[in-house]
Amino acid sequence: MMNNKSGIRRLVLDVLKPHNPSIVELAGVLGDVEGVDGVNLSLYEMDQKTENVKITLEGLDLDYELIRQEIENMGAVVHSVDEIAAGKKIIEEVETHQDR
Amino acid sequence: MMNNKSGIRRLVLDVLKPHNPSIVELAGVLGDVEGVDGVNLSLYEMDQKTENVKITLEGLDLDYELIRQEIENMGAVVHSVDEIAAGKKIIEEVETHQDR
Amino acid sequence: MMNNKSGIRRLVLDVLKPHNPSIVELAGVLGDVEGVDGVNLSLYEMDQKTENVKITLEGLDLDYELIRQEIENMGAVVHSVDEIAAGKKIIEEVETHQDR
Amino acid sequence: MMNNKSGIRRLVLDVLKPHNPSIVELAGVLGDVEGVDGVNLSLYEMDQKTENVKITLEGLDLDYELIRQEIENMGAVVHSVDEIAAGKKIIEEVETHQDR
Amino acid sequence: MMNNKSGIRRLVLDVLKPHNPSIVELAGVLGDVEGVDGVNLSLYEMDQKTENVKITLEGLDLDYELIRQEIENMGAVVHSVDEIAAGKKIIEEVETHQDR
Amino acid sequence: MMNNKSGIRRLVLDVLKPHNPSIVELAGVLGDVEGVDGVNLSLYEMDQKTENVKITLEGLDLDYELIRQEIENMGAVVHSVDEIAAGKKIIEEVETHQDR
Amino acid sequence: MMNNKSGIRRLVLDVLKPHNPSIVELAGVLGDVEGVDGVNLSLYEMDQKTENVKITLEGLDLDYELIRQEIENMGAVVHSVDEIAAGKKIIEEVETHQDR
Repeated sequence: MMNNKSGIRRLVLDVLKPHNPSIVELAGVLGDVEGVDGVNLSLYEMDQKTENVKITLEGLDLDYELIRQEIENMGAVVHSVDEIAAGKKIIEEVETHQDR
Repeated sequence: MMNNKSGIRRLVLDVLKPHNPSIVELAGVLGDVEGVDGVNLSLYEMDQKTENVKITLEGLDLDYELIRQEIENMGAVVHSVDEIAAGKKIIEEVETHQDR
Repeated sequence: MMNNKSGIRRLVLDVLKPHNPSIVELAGVLGDVEGVDGVNLSLYEMDQKTENVKITLEGLDLDYELIRQEIENMGAVVHSVDEIAAGKKIIEEVETHQDR
Repeated sequence: MMNNKSGIRRLVLDVLKPHNPSIVELAGVLGDVEGVDGVNLSLYEMDQKTENVKITLEGLDLDYELIRQEIENMGAVVHSVDEIAAGKKIIEEVETHQDR
Repeated sequence: MMNNKSGIRRLVLDVLKPHNPSIVELAGVLGDVEGVDGVNLSLYEMDQKTENVKITLEGLDLDYELIRQEIENMGAVVHSVDEIAAGKKIIEEVETHQDR
Repeated sequence: MMNNKSGIRRLVLDVLKPHNPSIVELAGVLGDVEGVDGVNLSLYEMDQKTENVKITLEGLDLDYELIRQEIENMGAVVHSVDEIAAGKKIIEEVETHQDR
Repeated sequence: MMNNKSGIRRLVLDVLKPHNPSIVELAGVLGDVEGVDGVNLSLYEMDQKTENVKITLEGLDLDYELIRQEIENMGAVVHSVDEIAAGKKIIEEVETHQDR
C-alpha cells in the first residue's frame, strides 16, 4: 500500500521487561499509541524476575521516541532495534546467500 | 481488516489442564466467550494427570481476564501468555536475524 | 468464512484402527456424517494388526460424540484429540518461540 | 469448491509396479478412469525389476475399487492407501505438535 | 485450469546429455515441440564429458515419445521419468507421513 | 509491475555502522532519498563499537551512488552489494541445485 | 502469462567477474539488453580478485549469445547455465523424490 509520505512503517524491538505490568497491559498501551496500526508481542524467554519480549509494530508513521518512552514508563527497556522499515511502503528484508 | 477501535486481536496462551473436562468441552466454552471469533486448541504434551495445550484466540476486542476466568472455571490454569496482538489490525511477528 | 453461530469447526484425531474395515471405508462413512464438510485420513504407522491414522475433519458444527461413535462402530478407537478449532471461523494455531 | 454430494475426493496410493508397462502408460490409463480429474505419479525408488511409485488422484467421486483394478490390470499392486480425503470438499491434513 | 480432454499435463525427466549441443539449444528445441507450453531445464551435475539435467515440461497433451525422440536427436538420453501428471487438470504430488 | 524505463529496482547492501547515528535515524534518512519507495534495515550483528546491518531498498530507479553517499555521511560504510535487481520489473533470484 | 511465440523466458547463469566493473554497473548493462524484462544479480562468493555472482534474467525472448557477449565485454565469464526456461510460459522446476 503506497502512501506518498515517507515515515517509519515497521519497528521490531528486543525488549526486557519485569513480570509486572503484564505483557497484556503492555500490548494494550502500545496498541493505543498514536500512529500504531497494530502491535505484536511475542515472549521468547522468561526467568524469575524478567521477560524477553520481541515487539513488532506497524503503522504509517511510527514515532520511535514516543514508543520507547511508553515502554520505559511500564518499567521495561528497549534492548535493541532489530529491524526497521521506512518509506512510502513496507519493504521486506531479502534473504541473500550470505544469510544461508 | 482494519477497524478503528484498537483492542486485543489475538492471544496465544500456554495452558495446563486436567484430562477432565475434555479439550472438546474447553473449546466449546471458549468459542462462545464474548468477543471471540475463533479459538484453536492444540495438544502438545499429555501425561497421566494433565495435558499441556496451546490455545490461540482471535477476535476484535478479546477480554483476557474473562478468558482466563473461563479457563480457570474449567479447572485449568494459564501458564503464560506467549503471544499477544493488539491495535486496529493483526500484525504478525517478523522473524529477525536474532531468531535464526 | 464467518458464520455467527459458534460451533466446532475442525477436529484432528489420532485414531488406532484394525486393518478392516479399510481406511477407504472409514473415509466414506465419516464423509457422510451430519455436519462434516470434508475429512482427511492420513496413515502414519502400520503394523501386523493395526494402523495409526490421523483424521482431520472440518465443518460448520461438528458433533464430536457422533463422530467418535461412528469411529468406534468401525472397530477403531480415538487415541487423542490433537487439535480442535471452534467459534465463528477457523483460527490456525500460531507458531511461537516456545515451539521453535 | 463445495459440492453437496460427498464422495472420495483424493487418494494417495503407494504402488509397486514392474518396469513395463511404463509409468507413462500407467498415467495415461489412470487419467482416463471415470471420475478422475487428474493423477500424479512420482517415482521414488527403482531397482532392477520394480519401481515404487506414489500415485495421487483427485476427482469429485473417485471409485477406489475401479482404480485398484486398473492398476492391477497393468501388473502393478497397491501397497497401501497413505491418504484419503472425502466429503463435500477436499480437507488438507493439519500438521500437529505430534508430527513435529 | 480444467480441460475436458485428458492427456499428459506434466513430465519431469532425468536426462544425461553431452556438453554439446548446449542446454540452451536443447531448451530451444523442446520449447518448440508440439503440445509443449513451457519447459524448464535445471543442471544438477556436470563432469568432464556429460551433464545431468532435470527437464520439467508442461502442456495440455504432451507426446512423451516425440519429446524422447527430440532429446535423443540431440545426443542425450532419458535416464528416467521421475514424475508425470495426466488428466483434465494438473494434480500436485501430496506429501504424506511416509515421505517425512 | 512493469515500467518501460529500465533502472535499478532493488539493492541489498551489507553495511557496517557505528552505534551513532542510530539505525532509526539511518532508516529515516534513506527512506527520504530520491527514488526510494521503501527501505528495510535489519541488524544481524552488534559489538562494542559497531553494528552490521543488512539494508534492502526498493524503488523504480535507485541511484546507488547517492545512497552510498548518504550512508557514508552517517559515518557508515557499504561493505558489499549482496544483491541487485534491475530492468522493467523486479526479478527474484531463482534457487538452483547448486544452491541446495 | 501465455504468449504464443516460444522463446527463452528465463536464464540462470553462474558468472565469475573481476571486482571492476562493479556488480551495480553489470546490472545496469544487463537490465538494458534487448528482450530483458528484469535481471537479478546475487553475490555468493568474493575473494581478493574475483566475485562469483548468480545472474537470473527473465523476458519474453532472451538472446543468450547477446547476453553472454555483454557479460564478456565487462571482463566477466559465464561459468555455467544452471537453469533455463523456454516456451510460451515460464515453467518452474518441480521438486521430485530424487531431489529430497
